[in-house]
Amino acid sequence: MPGFPRRSAGRRLQLPLLCLLFQGATAVLFAAFVRYNHETDPALWHWGNHSNAANEFYFRYPSFQDVHVMVFVGFGFLMAFLQRYGFSSVGFTFLLAAFALQWSTLIQGFLHSFHGGYIYVGVESMINADFCAGAVLISFGAILGKTGPTQLLLMALLEVVLFGINEFVLLSLLGVRDAGGSMTIHTFGAYFGLVLSRVLYRPQLEKSKHRQGSVSYSDLFAMIGTIFLWLFWPSFNSAPSALGDGQHRTALNTYYSLSASTLSTFALSALVGGDGRLDMVHIQNAALAGGVVVGTSGEMMLTPFGALAAGFLAGTVSTLGYKFFTPILESRFKIQDTCGVHNLHGMPGILGALLGVLVAGLATHEAYGDGLENVFPLIAEGQRSATSQAVHQLFGLFVTLTFASVGAGLGGLLLKLPFLDSPPDSQCFKDQIYWEVPGELEEEAQGPLRTEEPDTRA
Amino acid sequence: MPGFPRRSAGRRLQLPLLCLLFQGATAVLFAAFVRYNHETDPALWHWGNHSNAANEFYFRYPSFQDVHVMVFVGFGFLMAFLQRYGFSSVGFTFLLAAFALQWSTLIQGFLHSFHGGYIYVGVESMINADFCAGAVLISFGAILGKTGPTQLLLMALLEVVLFGINEFVLLSLLGVRDAGGSMTIHTFGAYFGLVLSRVLYRPQLEKSKHRQGSVSYSDLFAMIGTIFLWLFWPSFNSAPSALGDGQHRTALNTYYSLSASTLSTFALSALVGGDGRLDMVHIQNAALAGGVVVGTSGEMMLTPFGALAAGFLAGTVSTLGYKFFTPILESRFKIQDTCGVHNLHGMPGILGALLGVLVAGLATHEAYGDGLENVFPLIAEGQRSATSQAVHQLFGLFVTLTFASVGAGLGGLLLKLPFLDSPPDSQCFKDQIYWEVPGELEEEAQGPLRTEEPDTRA
Amino acid sequence: MPGFPRRSAGRRLQLPLLCLLFQGATAVLFAAFVRYNHETDPALWHWGNHSNAANEFYFRYPSFQDVHVMVFVGFGFLMAFLQRYGFSSVGFTFLLAAFALQWSTLIQGFLHSFHGGYIYVGVESMINADFCAGAVLISFGAILGKTGPTQLLLMALLEVVLFGINEFVLLSLLGVRDAGGSMTIHTFGAYFGLVLSRVLYRPQLEKSKHRQGSVSYSDLFAMIGTIFLWLFWPSFNSAPSALGDGQHRTALNTYYSLSASTLSTFALSALVGGDGRLDMVHIQNAALAGGVVVGTSGEMMLTPFGALAAGFLAGTVSTLGYKFFTPILESRFKIQDTCGVHNLHGMPGILGALLGVLVAGLATHEAYGDGLENVFPLIAEGQRSATSQAVHQLFGLFVTLTFASVGAGLGGLLLKLPFLDSPPDSQCFKDQIYWEVPGELEEEAQGPLRTEEPDTRA
Repeated sequence: MPGFPRRSAGRRLQLPLLCLLFQGATAVLFAAFVRYNHETDPALWHWGNHSNAANEFYFRYPSFQDVHVMVFVGFGFLMAFLQRYGFSSVGFTFLLAAFALQWSTLIQGFLHSFHGGYIYVGVESMINADFCAGAVLISFGAILGKTGPTQLLLMALLEVVLFGINEFVLLSLLGVRDAGGSMTIHTFGAYFGLVLSRVLYRPQLEKSKHRQGSVSYSDLFAMIGTIFLWLFWPSFNSAPSALGDGQHRTALNTYYSLSASTLSTFALSALVGGDGRLDMVHIQNAALAGGVVVGTSGEMMLTPFGALAAGFLAGTVSTLGYKFFTPILESRFKIQDTCGVHNLHGMPGILGALLGVLVAGLATHEAYGDGLENVFPLIAEGQRSATSQAVHQLFGLFVTLTFASVGAGLGGLLLKLPFLDSPPDSQCFKDQIYWEVPGELEEEAQGPLRTEEPDTRA
Repeated sequence: MPGFPRRSAGRRLQLPLLCLLFQGATAVLFAAFVRYNHETDPALWHWGNHSNAANEFYFRYPSFQDVHVMVFVGFGFLMAFLQRYGFSSVGFTFLLAAFALQWSTLIQGFLHSFHGGYIYVGVESMINADFCAGAVLISFGAILGKTGPTQLLLMALLEVVLFGINEFVLLSLLGVRDAGGSMTIHTFGAYFGLVLSRVLYRPQLEKSKHRQGSVSYSDLFAMIGTIFLWLFWPSFNSAPSALGDGQHRTALNTYYSLSASTLSTFALSALVGGDGRLDMVHIQNAALAGGVVVGTSGEMMLTPFGALAAGFLAGTVSTLGYKFFTPILESRFKIQDTCGVHNLHGMPGILGALLGVLVAGLATHEAYGDGLENVFPLIAEGQRSATSQAVHQLFGLFVTLTFASVGAGLGGLLLKLPFLDSPPDSQCFKDQIYWEVPGELEEEAQGPLRTEEPDTRA
Repeated sequence: MPGFPRRSAGRRLQLPLLCLLFQGATAVLFAAFVRYNHETDPALWHWGNHSNAANEFYFRYPSFQDVHVMVFVGFGFLMAFLQRYGFSSVGFTFLLAAFALQWSTLIQGFLHSFHGGYIYVGVESMINADFCAGAVLISFGAILGKTGPTQLLLMALLEVVLFGINEFVLLSLLGVRDAGGSMTIHTFGAYFGLVLSRVLYRPQLEKSKHRQGSVSYSDLFAMIGTIFLWLFWPSFNSAPSALGDGQHRTALNTYYSLSASTLSTFALSALVGGDGRLDMVHIQNAALAGGVVVGTSGEMMLTPFGALAAGFLAGTVSTLGYKFFTPILESRFKIQDTCGVHNLHGMPGILGALLGVLVAGLATHEAYGDGLENVFPLIAEGQRSATSQAVHQLFGLFVTLTFASVGAGLGGLLLKLPFLDSPPDSQCFKDQIYWEVPGELEEEAQGPLRTEEPDTRA
């Protein structure tokens, strides 16, 4: 591209070398540690006396595919609302998630399914790896447009590890329930991203302010992301739930919660909008808060009414957050939250955790019957009272906030290393620095269409 | 937005207040009446002696998700073909469907699954609620661009009730078979919308005629809607069918029918097009008629050939309808059918109902074997002959047309209430009246990319 | 459209007549030969003593739907990257695939499931028909923009037959394993298209060179295609695998392979790009090579590490192919490969076949246990050694290349028939010749929004 000075080789080579290094490293670790589990290994599977229909694949793979769509299409296109950053939004989502799922397979494997020196993989590890990639993409949303791909890969490298440890502390050590990840995914991902954005604060960002808006077609691309996230969120929350009533109830609760958050988002957006107009930013984001808010309690006895109420509250809080809190976050707290992840994942995540505290605290043997074992095994086995479970849930939220904040503080220092290929203030929110960008639609001389011209090919 | 006079508060507040009112009302009704059914309630499920694999979730949830995509992505983006109405097409689809599914859960619940004072919900109620939302969106297609969101919500309020009653009369009282809804969904939704459009006739609509066309990229967004509708229609028709061969056969028949309607649509579009050119309106819509036309007979012994023939006929009729009948509908009958729902849902819906009459009338014990019980229980139990079933099917069509027309007449009077926030003729088919619309892509001064500028963040 | 001379009637009528002829012919053949199989026929299904849960539908339909999305959304939108050819890319994909799946149901049925004079159909025939449509679309990619729809339908007519025969020779006669079709689908489709492109070589194609590029939004539409292909490729490769561990392992291997090809594509694209910039063409295409390369070996004991290594290699080779080999293909070999199918399907397909040779040759009873029967039945039954299986696999690759090349040579002569409606050199890569194309977005006089104007409808 004439007129553009070339970047130094040191900067140009960062992305390819980091990709090669990371891929090489995960491949070596896979060779050493990752093995098929008893449902994917032919010898192990056929050694047992199963019917093929009993393979976990048939109970979880359709949900996995819905989650997979959410991570790559949902997050990717939701972030494509920026008028000149569509390639990066979709493309870096693709890159980050493809790396995060490999790296997370290893980290989660070491922490959760490391037996006899090996990590055993199957559809459940695929779901968990995609979940972790989702958290990384939430953090990406906070710093979207202001970081280069090298920085993002380093963020993923660190965040996946911290995600795994936090999840291990909550689920395995504290016995916290969080199937759909209000805490482990949304709260963690959001505050990790927000603290990171704080550390990477750019006082001169108004230099590229004019590119932070959308255009009509970029908003429609973003709606593709929104709608697929909205549609498949019931699968997201239910993907790791207990089989049978567990998955079924979780999907149902999430479906109701999302429908209510959609109505409250439209109501609030029109209420606070100039001249009663709806704002696409709200619809694209806050309408999804109903999925986040039942991430913890969706598998519990939330009741259909409870799901509607929770969704309604989440949509309201989230829309008001976009309108009133995001500007303060930047002006007062120096947090430049590009996608408003505080409104979509942060506050609704915390609300979801607190809702989980409440619903767990109300758990009784009568309400759950023999199903209590699946939802609250420690209560069913008499090791813990409902109140104690609630306290543990609450403690899990604090642990998550701590891990996210401290981890992102460290991460921020890493991403500020001066030699990293970070975009200058004037080039933020712009694909051109990292991508070959095509020109605009060429004008055509609209001469007569010569369909009868002598065919030179004959 | 400078230069625009503000709407009066009475108009600006209609949408938020209606959303809050509707959401509040459904939440209260949910609290009073809606309960988990025996497959979503942990105590009930674990009380029985089921294997988890027997939970209905695993037989119907993947189909539900496909239906869900059709309703929100399919309908939403299909209607986004209008050059300046994409936000409203996708956004109001989102709002209407999110409300309709809650409201329909209640209405259908009261009519179909009200036991001991409660409505019991699970994946089947989710599918049925989404089906009803689909009918509402079909009606929306007829009045697209000419009604405000307040009017649309009121339409949904009324239409969901009438849909439920009509469905109850057909399926429960008359013993009509209509798994994929040729009558209950497509015919009902289409004629409800068409009569509504007649009542709301705007003689001065040519004031916004220039906005009724598409542009290249809006046609591609519409194709996203078309293709997802086309792909998942086999799931739509089979979602409520009997388990086993029933779902399997329905999906197969729909798949064949759609492939034939695609070929006949391309043939007819090129045949009637200026200079043999294909028309995107036909491809986006008429190619889908094959799904509509087997909505009733798809679960029956239609045979693969029958499916192809039905699809072929539907694509032909639909394409010719777009070319020749839509203009007459407006000029003679004063029905301004924005999306041509008469061609995609109306005529193919009636054809589908008649095809159901035919195939039901030919039912024999030999052809269905013991599977007759699932498709025509009343014939299998000897309560009805095949001919009698056919007559009932035909009567169901007349009932549907009556309910749709009379109901929409009433609905039209409701929507004409003068204080409702309806767009003036000159502002139809335009997002700007209800949405904050971003400007066009900003021109950038393409100066040299200063990647080596002093980094002010360090 | 004023100013355009009308095409002759002989050209204008080709498309409609061919569509009608083809649809009529398949319908007649369906009437004569196609019947419901024992899982879709009510009498046959209920005659047996099955549980409904045992119906193949529940094990394969979700995978089928993913494949269906890949064929129609994936291929269609991936090819919509061209700035003025979006309607044709998506529309002709729709037409071709809708015809190919019917025609292939017949051809594959005659070759694979013809019993007692009838072809029996169900979800497996749906998957296989969609697979064949996929191969046709791969070939379409090589000649995209340079052929009219009549030519494309004739190509499909021929290619489906040759695809079926080649598949029959490999799978049924040679006992080759190729679940995900590295050979039968990707290698066959790619080389069929490339040879066709050679025969149809247009020396004057630079006349429409300026239309071969993309614009920002067309690249984002293409990314919709890419991402859905990438996401659902695990379902593609596993759709026809053995139930149980077979499908599960194949999906897992494909998931890993794709994640590695994504990282190597980003690495290589930045490495060879001007100033280290990423190229959308690489990301849209080469990142998918990981799915192609494990098409044969995905069901085998590839190991998770093997999947990563294979994907890494495929992404690397494919990206380098786009950068360095595509220009040579045109200049030296006179092959104008519009979508670069040689890089995405050709070379990775051959690599995938060779990987299958290797992994098959290493098969042992120890590694597969009793699962060997499902993956290599001839080895399990002692009819063949692993080495012999490997030799047969290799021979299958040569058979495929031969069938594709010779068949496409014949096909090219057919498509060069001078009366066929082929676009002249100056009109390639342009929708306008076959489609009614809307104008650009109309400028609106942005006068004050008169919401308070007297409502003429009252």
